[in-house]
Amino acid sequence: MQTYLDCIPCLCRQALDAARFATDDEAIHMQVLRRALTAAGEMDMRQSPPAMAQKMHRLIGELTGSHDPYAGVKAHGNEYALAMYPELSRRIAAANDPLAAGVRMAIAGNIIDFGATSSVEDATIASHIEAAWSAPLLGNSVDDLRAAVAGARDILYLGDNAGEIVFDRMLIEQLPAERITYAVKAFPVINDATRVDAEQAGLTALVEVIDNGSDAPGTVLETCSDAFRRRFAEADLIISKGQGNYESLSDSVGDIFFLLKVKCKVIAQDLDCEQGSLILKRSS
Amino acid sequence: MQTYLDCIPCLCRQALDAARFATDDEAIHMQVLRRALTAAGEMDMRQSPPAMAQKMHRLIGELTGSHDPYAGVKAHGNEYALAMYPELSRRIAAANDPLAAGVRMAIAGNIIDFGATSSVEDATIASHIEAAWSAPLLGNSVDDLRAAVAGARDILYLGDNAGEIVFDRMLIEQLPAERITYAVKAFPVINDATRVDAEQAGLTALVEVIDNGSDAPGTVLETCSDAFRRRFAEADLIISKGQGNYESLSDSVGDIFFLLKVKCKVIAQDLDCEQGSLILKRSS
Repeated sequence: MQTYLDCIPCLCRQALDAARFATDDEAIHMQVLRRALTAAGEMDMRQSPPAMAQKMHRLIGELTGSHDPYAGVKAHGNEYALAMYPELSRRIAAANDPLAAGVRMAIAGNIIDFGATSSVEDATIASHIEAAWSAPLLGNSVDDLRAAVAGARDILYLGDNAGEIVFDRMLIEQLPAERITYAVKAFPVINDATRVDAEQAGLTALVEVIDNGSDAPGTVLETCSDAFRRRFAEADLIISKGQGNYESLSDSVGDIFFLLKVKCKVIAQDLDCEQGSLILKRSS
Repeated sequence: MQTYLDCIPCLCRQALDAARFATDDEAIHMQVLRRALTAAGEMDMRQSPPAMAQKMHRLIGELTGSHDPYAGVKAHGNEYALAMYPELSRRIAAANDPLAAGVRMAIAGNIIDFGATSSVEDATIASHIEAAWSAPLLGNSVDDLRAAVAGARDILYLGDNAGEIVFDRMLIEQLPAERITYAVKAFPVINDATRVDAEQAGLTALVEVIDNGSDAPGTVLETCSDAFRRRFAEADLIISKGQGNYESLSDSVGDIFFLLKVKCKVIAQDLDCEQGSLILKRSS
């Protein structure tokens, strides 16, 4: 997906958020915002928003000296989601269709996204998770995913955010874990999950976890490692979580199921749905 | 009030909105956004947001050739509010305290603001108006306003937006109209009311209507006419409607009652209240 004009003010807002997570120094906040405005004005709109954001967050790292401003956010996200895990797991196991329930939880967990909005309150997470048990699921059916999984030997699951990764675990527990590789970001960016989050979420004990070699808040293949790109090309099936992965992979080849919660009007327009929708969409 | 860093991405979003109202030409939207980013990066943060917005919207006028992009929005706002007028007027007249009811309607009408958000749906206006009959009114009491009005010979009422101006009429009908002068913007900017809106709203038949000589979406006194500045200085009491007037006058001298609906987190922080609050606040 290209970057839309509406993404630009949002990226500037995101830069300011990140600066504030990185430091309390207001002079640096100002400096980051000014540099972000300049960078935004020079951007190539044919690139995807995560490719733009990647450059922006590298710049913020240079200016603030902090290369993991969302470390606290990520740890809290994991803890909060892990506290919900026992009860939600029981409900998934007791559901009529545990795979469908797992899909719903994984999509709802995508609300824990500090890129799309400045902050996500615990109460917001809880209410979105609860609503997801019965909200409409748009796009393809869970049976489409079920059939694709049954026919795939090598499934690559692209993670998105810390906290959310615990909800991915709930879905993966309803899938053939031995055929799944779970990919995280190689370096911190916003609250995207890295290996340490996969460990905290209990995913490393369940599936093979790899990193994608990149620091983009999505899967910008040109900036991923050769090893990851090979895994991506070889996978029979890709399960892609979240907006950033959708934005960066919506035009890619491969059999991809996009699972995401729609958190901004640009994605709502792109997918022709309402903001807040739960999406399970197979690439065309 | 100074401009906060959070205002900057919001001003860029506002510039893009205005460009889209002005023309369907996407190349011009892009050009406006790039110029807005550059202008935003060079701004003096000690100025108020309306002073910044004024420069931004002049630039948009130059680039798009449209100097009244919100003409349709304003006409619709007036029509929609006028359709609500008969029923709401009856409810105000039948209220225990008609002045308090008029104050509530005037504040709630401030939801019709295309600066703070990209668009305002009719259903949103209706629901905010209905909620305002019983929502908490923060700041000073209506009795403070009542007493100040009783003691004032010369009251200057600073209007804000088209549509909203009909709700101002409902309040003015509960005030001594012969002592009130109503001020509108001299030139179009966003959906701020000008003389034509005062005529459509029926205000010109009720009170003296003047313009402030300016094209700022607020009351940036340095850019107002000498005549208006004299009226401002001579008024015993000023009733100031909306966020833009609050942002530009919160540090001014004079006995000012600010009536507004809080529509963004910057103003919520400045006034130490929740977004969505109804404010009646006397200047200190």
